[in-house]
Amino acid sequence: MTNFFKGIDPVRFAPDAGPDTLAYRHYDPDEMVAGKRMEDHLRFAVAWWHSFAWPGGDPFGGQTFERPWFGDTMDLARLKTDVAFEMFALLGQPYFCWHDADIRPEGDSFAESKRNFEEIIDYIGEKMDAQGTKLLWGTANLFSHRRFMAGAATNPDPEVFAWSAATVKNCIDATHRLGGENYVLWGGREGYETLLNTDLARERAQAGRFLQMVVEYKHSIGFKGAVLIEPKPQEPTKHQYDYDVATVYSFLKDFGLEDEVQVNIEQGHAILAGHSFEHELATAAALGIFGSIDMNRNDYQSGWDTDQFPNNVPEVALAYYEVLKAGGFSTGGTNFDAKLRRQSLDPNDLIAAHAGAMDVCARGFKAAAAMLEDGGLEAARADRYAGWDREPAKTWATTATLGEIAAEVEKGGIDPQPRSGRQEILENYVSRFV
Amino acid sequence: MTNFFKGIDPVRFAPDAGPDTLAYRHYDPDEMVAGKRMEDHLRFAVAWWHSFAWPGGDPFGGQTFERPWFGDTMDLARLKTDVAFEMFALLGQPYFCWHDADIRPEGDSFAESKRNFEEIIDYIGEKMDAQGTKLLWGTANLFSHRRFMAGAATNPDPEVFAWSAATVKNCIDATHRLGGENYVLWGGREGYETLLNTDLARERAQAGRFLQMVVEYKHSIGFKGAVLIEPKPQEPTKHQYDYDVATVYSFLKDFGLEDEVQVNIEQGHAILAGHSFEHELATAAALGIFGSIDMNRNDYQSGWDTDQFPNNVPEVALAYYEVLKAGGFSTGGTNFDAKLRRQSLDPNDLIAAHAGAMDVCARGFKAAAAMLEDGGLEAARADRYAGWDREPAKTWATTATLGEIAAEVEKGGIDPQPRSGRQEILENYVSRFV
Amino acid sequence: MTNFFKGIDPVRFAPDAGPDTLAYRHYDPDEMVAGKRMEDHLRFAVAWWHSFAWPGGDPFGGQTFERPWFGDTMDLARLKTDVAFEMFALLGQPYFCWHDADIRPEGDSFAESKRNFEEIIDYIGEKMDAQGTKLLWGTANLFSHRRFMAGAATNPDPEVFAWSAATVKNCIDATHRLGGENYVLWGGREGYETLLNTDLARERAQAGRFLQMVVEYKHSIGFKGAVLIEPKPQEPTKHQYDYDVATVYSFLKDFGLEDEVQVNIEQGHAILAGHSFEHELATAAALGIFGSIDMNRNDYQSGWDTDQFPNNVPEVALAYYEVLKAGGFSTGGTNFDAKLRRQSLDPNDLIAAHAGAMDVCARGFKAAAAMLEDGGLEAARADRYAGWDREPAKTWATTATLGEIAAEVEKGGIDPQPRSGRQEILENYVSRFV
Amino acid sequence: MTNFFKGIDPVRFAPDAGPDTLAYRHYDPDEMVAGKRMEDHLRFAVAWWHSFAWPGGDPFGGQTFERPWFGDTMDLARLKTDVAFEMFALLGQPYFCWHDADIRPEGDSFAESKRNFEEIIDYIGEKMDAQGTKLLWGTANLFSHRRFMAGAATNPDPEVFAWSAATVKNCIDATHRLGGENYVLWGGREGYETLLNTDLARERAQAGRFLQMVVEYKHSIGFKGAVLIEPKPQEPTKHQYDYDVATVYSFLKDFGLEDEVQVNIEQGHAILAGHSFEHELATAAALGIFGSIDMNRNDYQSGWDTDQFPNNVPEVALAYYEVLKAGGFSTGGTNFDAKLRRQSLDPNDLIAAHAGAMDVCARGFKAAAAMLEDGGLEAARADRYAGWDREPAKTWATTATLGEIAAEVEKGGIDPQPRSGRQEILENYVSRFV
Repeated sequence: MTNFFKGIDPVRFAPDAGPDTLAYRHYDPDEMVAGKRMEDHLRFAVAWWHSFAWPGGDPFGGQTFERPWFGDTMDLARLKTDVAFEMFALLGQPYFCWHDADIRPEGDSFAESKRNFEEIIDYIGEKMDAQGTKLLWGTANLFSHRRFMAGAATNPDPEVFAWSAATVKNCIDATHRLGGENYVLWGGREGYETLLNTDLARERAQAGRFLQMVVEYKHSIGFKGAVLIEPKPQEPTKHQYDYDVATVYSFLKDFGLEDEVQVNIEQGHAILAGHSFEHELATAAALGIFGSIDMNRNDYQSGWDTDQFPNNVPEVALAYYEVLKAGGFSTGGTNFDAKLRRQSLDPNDLIAAHAGAMDVCARGFKAAAAMLEDGGLEAARADRYAGWDREPAKTWATTATLGEIAAEVEKGGIDPQPRSGRQEILENYVSRFV
Repeated sequence: MTNFFKGIDPVRFAPDAGPDTLAYRHYDPDEMVAGKRMEDHLRFAVAWWHSFAWPGGDPFGGQTFERPWFGDTMDLARLKTDVAFEMFALLGQPYFCWHDADIRPEGDSFAESKRNFEEIIDYIGEKMDAQGTKLLWGTANLFSHRRFMAGAATNPDPEVFAWSAATVKNCIDATHRLGGENYVLWGGREGYETLLNTDLARERAQAGRFLQMVVEYKHSIGFKGAVLIEPKPQEPTKHQYDYDVATVYSFLKDFGLEDEVQVNIEQGHAILAGHSFEHELATAAALGIFGSIDMNRNDYQSGWDTDQFPNNVPEVALAYYEVLKAGGFSTGGTNFDAKLRRQSLDPNDLIAAHAGAMDVCARGFKAAAAMLEDGGLEAARADRYAGWDREPAKTWATTATLGEIAAEVEKGGIDPQPRSGRQEILENYVSRFV
Repeated sequence: MTNFFKGIDPVRFAPDAGPDTLAYRHYDPDEMVAGKRMEDHLRFAVAWWHSFAWPGGDPFGGQTFERPWFGDTMDLARLKTDVAFEMFALLGQPYFCWHDADIRPEGDSFAESKRNFEEIIDYIGEKMDAQGTKLLWGTANLFSHRRFMAGAATNPDPEVFAWSAATVKNCIDATHRLGGENYVLWGGREGYETLLNTDLARERAQAGRFLQMVVEYKHSIGFKGAVLIEPKPQEPTKHQYDYDVATVYSFLKDFGLEDEVQVNIEQGHAILAGHSFEHELATAAALGIFGSIDMNRNDYQSGWDTDQFPNNVPEVALAYYEVLKAGGFSTGGTNFDAKLRRQSLDPNDLIAAHAGAMDVCARGFKAAAAMLEDGGLEAARADRYAGWDREPAKTWATTATLGEIAAEVEKGGIDPQPRSGRQEILENYVSRFV
Repeated sequence: MTNFFKGIDPVRFAPDAGPDTLAYRHYDPDEMVAGKRMEDHLRFAVAWWHSFAWPGGDPFGGQTFERPWFGDTMDLARLKTDVAFEMFALLGQPYFCWHDADIRPEGDSFAESKRNFEEIIDYIGEKMDAQGTKLLWGTANLFSHRRFMAGAATNPDPEVFAWSAATVKNCIDATHRLGGENYVLWGGREGYETLLNTDLARERAQAGRFLQMVVEYKHSIGFKGAVLIEPKPQEPTKHQYDYDVATVYSFLKDFGLEDEVQVNIEQGHAILAGHSFEHELATAAALGIFGSIDMNRNDYQSGWDTDQFPNNVPEVALAYYEVLKAGGFSTGGTNFDAKLRRQSLDPNDLIAAHAGAMDVCARGFKAAAAMLEDGGLEAARADRYAGWDREPAKTWATTATLGEIAAEVEKGGIDPQPRSGRQEILENYVSRFV
C-alpha cells in the first residue's frame, strides 16, 4: 500500500450517512433499475490521464499538483499504477481507461517506448486480475508530443502517419490483451491551425485510410470490442475534423465504416460544437452509431474544454434518457473524462469528486429510467406524429411524387392547422422526475 | 417609372470618381480576370426578400421602413416588382433571387396563393425579358407562416409536408419557367425547439424523402439547374438539421443524393456554426458539393444572423480563393443575402449598400485571382505534403496494413522531425495581395 | 368572465396531486421558510408583455398565437386586461408587471396615447382593488416603435429624448398611482449598431442626465419604490450601454446615482454577457445595488435572448442563495420575464408554464434557504479567508505601504503554501441540498 | 553574436523589394503622418514572454520550440537576453516589454529570485544603452507559479498578497531604473473558479487596496510612467475581475484611482469579453482612461485567447482611428502581445511574424490618419447630433426636469421623425481608405 490516500475510507453506499461522511447516497451498484443492476447499466470508468497524469497546468500557469509519482521512470510509473488501483478500490467503480502516454514513460526511441509500455501493461494486467477492475477502453495519445503538432494520421509528413499507425497497433494489442471492451480514437491534432497551409481533401483521405486500417487490424487479431471515435470541434486545433457526431458520420459513410465504428460522446465537446449533450446522443442513436460517453460537464460561459465533474442532475437525466432510449450501453460506459480544478490539491479531492459525480449520475439515471418506464414523453411524441402512421401520409413518405402530392393539395381540402408543441408542459413533466 | 429612386443615377465603373459620387471604383464587369469577364466570374445577385420585403423589424421592434409597396394586394406586388427592376437597372448586376412569399401576396387558399404567384411570375418574366436581368435562383418560403412553425418537410403533421411539397413544386416550376439557374432549399424550420417533443430519426427520414422527390421532380420536368441546400446551424430553431456543410453531406450520402445536390454557403451561417466562411467553402469543395454562395457577413460579437453587407476585403479574398480553387461558379453565383440595418431608411442606402458590397467583392476577387495565379500558397502546400507523393508513403496510404507499417517503425529508422508550419509567413504572403 | 381559460381550474398547492392534475407540488405560499411565508420571499410576478402582448413572432416568422384580444382598440385592451386578471386568479401569484405599450393601444399623437394609457390604468386599478393582485413594477417601452430605432435617452435627435422623458414621467405616475413597488428602465435601444455613426461620450452623458431626472422626479412626487436598471449586453443593438451589473455600476458612480438606483437582473441577460446568473447577483450584492430579478433562462447554445421559463432546480437554487445572502428582496421580486415557445399555442400552455416555473423556483428557494441555514458554504468560506482576520494581514489590507510589505517579505519567513480550493467538495455539498 | 538568427538580414523599409525579401513594404519609421514620424506614433514593442519564454505548449501538448536558451540558469537568461536584443536589432522596433518571470530564473527563495532579477535587469540595462531599444513597460508575472493559483492581490491567503506586493515593488523599481514608460498589471488570477468558495466583496477590497499601494509607491519613488490595468474577462479563471474597460473603470472610481490609472487594451481580450477592439478603445477614451494597446488578434471562432499577430488591415485601421481620436499614444504604444503558432518553429518565423504585423499596423494606421484628416466620419457624426447643440435641447440636457419636458411634449408639436443612420454609406466611406 502507498500512503497517498492514507486515512481515506472506501466509499460505499450509505444513503443515511452523516454530512461529514463521504458515501454514495444514491449510487447503489446492486440496485435493480429497469431490469439490471445499476453498476451494469452505468459502467463507470475512471480516466487515468486526468486523475494521475495531469499536473494541474493551464495556458497561464504550471503544475499545481505535487504527486509522488510525477517523473519519467518505470518505478514512478509503477507507483502511479499502485495509487491508481488503490483509488479504484476506494471508489469501487468497475472500469478505467488510459492513453499509452499516461501509463508509461516516453522512451528515447519507438522501441524503448514500446518496451516501457508493454512492461507496464503487464503490471496493470496483474493488478486487474488481483482486484477485478476492468478496462473500458484504451487509446493512444497522438497529440501531446511535438511530433504530432501538425496531426497524426493527417500529418503532412508520412513518417508521423507511420509512427501513429505503429502506436495505435500497440495500443490495440494492449487493449485486447487486457480484455478492454472498446478502443477509442480522439483526433486532437487531426485538424488544422490555418487553411493556408492545409490540404483538406488529402488529410481527409489519410484519416479515412488510417481508420480503415484500424478496423481491419481489429478484426485480424480477433478483438471484439468496439472502435469508437470521439468527436470534438476544436481545441487544441482551430478546426478538428471530427467536429461532431453528424460530421463523424459523414466521414464514416465516405469510407464505408458506418457499421464498424461508433462514437464516444463527451458532454463538453458537444457544448463546444454548439450542441446539447442530449442532441449528440440522440443524433448518434438516430444514425445507429451510438457507443459510449465521456461524462463531464463544460462551463457554459467558458469557450474551452473545462472537463469538470458533472453536478447537475436534470442535465444528466436527459443524457441518460437518450442512452436508455438507444438501448443502453453494450460495450460502452460512463467514463469520467473529468479533471479536478487545479486548486483541488488534496488526495481527498480526487475521491470526493468521483464519488459526487457517481451519485449525480445515479440520480440522473434513475430519473431517466423512471421517465422511460412511465412513458409520458414517448406517448406525447407518438401522439404528435400519429398522422404519419395513416394514409395518405404513409404513401407521401414513401412512393408519392412531388407532382402527385401537389395535385392533392391543389384540389383543396388540405389546410394544415398548427397544434401546440406543449414544450413547457413536457418540461414540467420532466421536472417531476428529476 | 416609379419615383422611389428618383434622383439616383445608375452606378457605373468609374475608378476616379470624386468622393461624393456613388460609383464602382473596383468592379468593372468587363475587366478580364483569370480568363473571364468579372461579371461572369462573380455573378452578383440581389435578394428580393431583404431588399424589398423586409420591413426593418427585429425581435424588439417593428417596422422602420416605409415603402410605398408594403401591403397585400397584387397591385402592390407589381409596384414592388417595378421598383426591384429599377434597382437592378441602377446597379447593373446580372441576377436576382426570390422566395415565393417575397413576390406575391398570400391568398386565402393554396389555390389563390398559386394564382397570385403565377400572375406575378408572368409579370417578372416580362420584366426580365425587357431588361435582361436573370434569375440566379428561386426558393420557397416554408418558414414564415404559422403553419410551418413546427417544420415543413419535417413537420409532425403530414399535411404540412404535403403543403410544402406542393409549394416547392410550384416554385421549381416557376424557377424553370424563368430560366433560373438553381433551385435552393433553406430549412429554416427543419429542426427543433426541444428534443422532448421531437422524433429525430423520423424527421430525418421525412426530410430525406422530400429531397429525393425534389430531385426526381427536377429531372422529370427537364430542369437543368442545380438543387442547392443552404446550411445553417440554428436560428430560428434551437437546432437546424442542415447544421453545416459536413452535416448536409452526411444527409445527402444517406439518401443517395450526394451527386444530385450541392450547397449554397452563407458566410453568416458558417460563423454561427463555429466555422470560418473559407472553411465551409473548402469543405464543400473537398466533398464535391460546392454550389453557390450567399455573400454577407455576420457580426462576430452577435450570436444571431446579422446578414450585413460585406465590407472586409481580406476576408472576402480568402472566400473567393476557395471558390476559385473549386473551379469557380458554374450555375452558382454571389447572392447578397444581406439586409440594410433597420436604421438605413433611405432609398439611397439600398443602392449604396449593394454598390459598396460589389466593390468589396471585386477587390477581394481580384486579390484571390492574383494569389492563385502567383501560386505561392499552392507551391507551399505542395511542398508541405511532398513526402506523400513518394514511396513508401504511397503504399502506406493505400494498401499497407497497420501491422506492416508498425513493423517498419519498430525496426527503427523512422523518427519524424517537425517542420515549421510557416503560418505567419503565409499570412504575410496573403497580406501582400489584399 | 371571458372564455379564454374555460375549463382550466385554479392552480393550488397539492403536493400529492395525480400526474394529470396541474398543481403546485412544491410552492405553498403559506409555508414558512427562514422566518417568512414563501409568497413573501419569492414575490412572484407575471409579465404582461410576454403573456398577453407577444404574438409569437421571431426574426423568421410572424404571429403564431391567435388571441381574441389582439388588435388596437380600447375594447380589446380591456379584454386583454380581463384575461390577464383571470390568469392571475388562476395562478394566485401576488404581482404583475407592464410596459405602457403592452396595456394600451398606441394613439395617433402623444396626447392620445396618454389618454388611452390613463384610461386603461384606471381599469387595471379597479381590477387590482377587486382581486388583490399587486404591481411589482411598471416600465416604459422605449424600443419597439420606429421613433426609438436609434435610442431613447441616447438618441441623436433630442426630440426623441423629450418624447422618452415624457413617456417615462407618465409611466412613473401610473406606477405610483397603482402602488407599484419599483420602476424599471431597460434600455433596449440605448446602445449602437455601429461606432461609425455614434458619439459614445455624448450618448453616455444624455443617459446620465436622463436617469438623474428620473430620480429627481421620483422624489418630487413622493414615489417610494425603487428605480431599477436592467442590464443587457446586446440584442437588439450590437452594443447596449447597460452591458452588465459592473458596467451599470460604473455609470451610476459617474452620475452620482449609486445610492439611488439598483439593478433588476435577468438570467438570460447575464448569460448573454458571459456571466452566470449567480455572478451578476453576487456582484450586485457586493456593490450594494441589488434590487430585483427577472427569472427566466436562456438556452446555452443559442446566442440570443430566449426568455424561457426556468426548469433547472440546481441553477435556480444558486441564484436564490445569492438573493438570500443579499438579504432577500425588499421592494424587488421574482418576475417571470419568460415567454412560451411560439409553438405553445394553447391557453393551458400559459398556465402550465407559469405553474411549473413557480414550482421550480420554490424547490430552488427552499434548497437555498436550507443551505444558508446549514451554513456549510459560509463556514468553508470564512475558513478560507481566515488569515485576513489576523495581523499582520489586517495592517497589510489597510495602512501598510508597498515598501513596508516588501521589506517584510524580503527578510524571509513568508513563503505561502497553496491550500486546496475544495471546489468539488463544495459542489457535492450543494448537490446534497438540490 | 549568437547564431540564432544566423543568415537573417535586418528588416528595413523597402517598398519595392522582391517577393522573396523580408522587408517593410509599408512601415517607414521616418514617414511623417499627421505631423509626426510613424515610429513616434506607433511606438512598436516586442513582448519578451511570447517571443522568448513561451515553449509552444497548449492544453493538449507540450513544448514544440527548441531554443538554446531554454532552462533555468543565469547563463541561459543572459543568452536569452542576447538573442532578444539581436531580434530587436533585426526588427528595429523602438520598444520591448517584460514580466519578471520572462527574464530571470525563479530562485529557491524570494531573495534569490530578486538577486537573479536585479542581475538580469543590469544586463538588460547595458544592452539598452548600447543599442537604444527602450522599455515600453514592465510587469510582474503573478499568475504562473502555483502559489498564485487562487489569486495574487485577491488571494484568500494574505501571505500571497504580501509576496505579490513585494514582487510588484521590485518590478516597478526595475521598470523605473530602465526608464520604462509604463507599469502594467494584468490580473490573470484575480478572479475565481467558483463562487462557492469566493468572497467577492472581500477580494475586491483587497484588489483596491493593492492598487492604491501601487500608485502611492509609484509617486513615492518619482516614477513618472503610467500605471495601466489590462482588462480580460476570463481565462485562465472562470471570471476575472478586470472584465473589460467599463468594469475596470467602476473599480477605479470606487477606489478613487480614475485619474491615476489607465488601461492597456488588448484586442483578443476585447473579443473574449464580447466587444470589438474599437469599442473598448472608444469606451476608454470616453471615460478618460485610455493608455496603451496590446495589438494582436483573436480567432473569432475560438473561445480562448489565441494571441495571433494582426493581419487584417481594415480592423487595425478602425482601432488606430480610435487611438488617434483619443489623441494618440502619450506613454503608451503598440505592444505585440502575440505569439507564433506552435508549429512555427523557425527563427525566421519570429522575425517574419513581427515584420508582417508591423506592416499591417502601418497600413491600418495610415488609413486611419487619412480618414481623420479627411474628416468625413466626424462631419457625419456632428451632423447626426446637431440637434443637441441648439435650444431647447441644450436645456433638456442640463437643467430641465422630467416634468418640464413632459409638459412640452404633451402640448404637442414634438413628433420625432426617424432619420437614416447611414451605416452602409459610412462603411463604404471607410472602405475607400483601407
